[in-house]
Amino acid sequence: MPSQRDASPELQAAMDECREKVNKTLARLLPDTDLPEERIYDAMRYGTMNGGKRLRPFMVVQSAMLFGVDEMRARRAAAALELLHSYSLIHDDLPAMDNSDLRRGKPSTHKEFDEATAILAGDGLLTYAFEILTEPETHEDPRVRCELVNALAKASGPNGMVGGQMLDLIGETEEFDFGTISRMQRMKTGRLMAFACEAGAILGKASETNRKALRNYAYDLGFAFQVTDDILDVESDSDVIGKPANQDSEAGKSTFVSTLGKEQAKQRAEMIVQQANRHLRVFDKRADLLRELASYVLERRA
Amino acid sequence: MPSQRDASPELQAAMDECREKVNKTLARLLPDTDLPEERIYDAMRYGTMNGGKRLRPFMVVQSAMLFGVDEMRARRAAAALELLHSYSLIHDDLPAMDNSDLRRGKPSTHKEFDEATAILAGDGLLTYAFEILTEPETHEDPRVRCELVNALAKASGPNGMVGGQMLDLIGETEEFDFGTISRMQRMKTGRLMAFACEAGAILGKASETNRKALRNYAYDLGFAFQVTDDILDVESDSDVIGKPANQDSEAGKSTFVSTLGKEQAKQRAEMIVQQANRHLRVFDKRADLLRELASYVLERRA
Repeated sequence: MPSQRDASPELQAAMDECREKVNKTLARLLPDTDLPEERIYDAMRYGTMNGGKRLRPFMVVQSAMLFGVDEMRARRAAAALELLHSYSLIHDDLPAMDNSDLRRGKPSTHKEFDEATAILAGDGLLTYAFEILTEPETHEDPRVRCELVNALAKASGPNGMVGGQMLDLIGETEEFDFGTISRMQRMKTGRLMAFACEAGAILGKASETNRKALRNYAYDLGFAFQVTDDILDVESDSDVIGKPANQDSEAGKSTFVSTLGKEQAKQRAEMIVQQANRHLRVFDKRADLLRELASYVLERRA
Repeated sequence: MPSQRDASPELQAAMDECREKVNKTLARLLPDTDLPEERIYDAMRYGTMNGGKRLRPFMVVQSAMLFGVDEMRARRAAAALELLHSYSLIHDDLPAMDNSDLRRGKPSTHKEFDEATAILAGDGLLTYAFEILTEPETHEDPRVRCELVNALAKASGPNGMVGGQMLDLIGETEEFDFGTISRMQRMKTGRLMAFACEAGAILGKASETNRKALRNYAYDLGFAFQVTDDILDVESDSDVIGKPANQDSEAGKSTFVSTLGKEQAKQRAEMIVQQANRHLRVFDKRADLLRELASYVLERRA
């Protein structure tokens, strides 16, 4: 087992820069209002501007750079994806779902506001993400904009993230085999990560080969991310991961750790990360930060 | 006050035919599965195939017909809108929101399934609606598909339906003036109805004048619809409207009836319906069913 370490200075610097720029784009997309319904905007902003790593936006921007996509456009698509990701976290935290009072060390949106506001803020963010993607500022070609919406909807709908979340809940009362847990994790996290890299390829009108390579890389990366999440859930204390530890195991959920054991789960994650990077062989060294990202996901501590 | 009456035979026949055809499209879009996560599809179908009047789909199809749009395509866009409308009903009924156990005389989705499943089914329907609109089967021109998504997202997001829902909840604890109630109702219902007719114009690549006329007609119609909803809430018993009566007034919500009184609210609704129909002047007799629909909305009993 490799020792846990931080990202390399290059990767860290690139992620930091991307995070700052995407945060600015997000802040611009979620402005203050003094409308009578401002509470929903406050909650949408609260659930989004929450110190997230902006991993998915980084993947969009890095993939888009491979095809010379204008950075402003890549960041807009990246921000839309992050809004959608934020919606999923707000709804996941709800009492009827994972019932998490904390998210990244702060009260989750329904604790800071209330349940109804959190439900609506999530709905609002999801809807707004699609609005942003269909604006000409995201790309001048409506075919590209349509493809972005279609791919994101497929990745995040019942056939993707939301279906995976359903499986996750079913797993609280049913014991899953390895195949079903894999299905769940790939739907829950893999599909949306796959979209992150695919979005860069769509924006750059990349060849089908390149698009597929990026999608497969990110799909595997998302899978590895979820396996390490399970490991972190049993290994860490809540101060480090910013949410209650042992949450999944206490909820009686089937996880990779509960099925494979911790050591086998770690080995599996390493294998998947190697597999992820093999998909990047079609790209030259401009994909090096994506290659490094895979190791970072494996060895992250939170 | 006009006596309450049913729709004319022509309108009724056209609405019945449209409802049947749209229901078939919806059933095709929401097929049975035997996937491990089939529960979410079951809930999505349950929340959609619920005996609804399919008023919004009728508006899409009638508007599209004014511009000679292929009926299959109009029905696809209509079905997408109805999926989105169904999501909003599922989320509105949740305990944290309106806490309604009944919807059209049957257990609401979170009662038939559970809260978590209802939240996810709503999220799934919302996402799926956008997926459908971006498929080439909806329209061969990606610019048209993009416009549909953009207009629907604007109508249903924080600046539209979801924002109106937020206002509605704020209204449980704050007393609203006439202006704020109007804003709430127009956002909650008007914007999505406006999209229904606008969708027909977008599909038919109508002129800006015609598109605006239809949008304004439907926006007013939606407003009148909501005012009559408030009236029905205090007038009917739950058997007729299929949900608990006096729900809003018991929740202490500001409504048109609570602000204007019942008789003034009725007069206001009539005025708005006349205004709605004035927008249709640019169209010939092919818009007659839409004209009739306005009276039907005013005089409906449920």
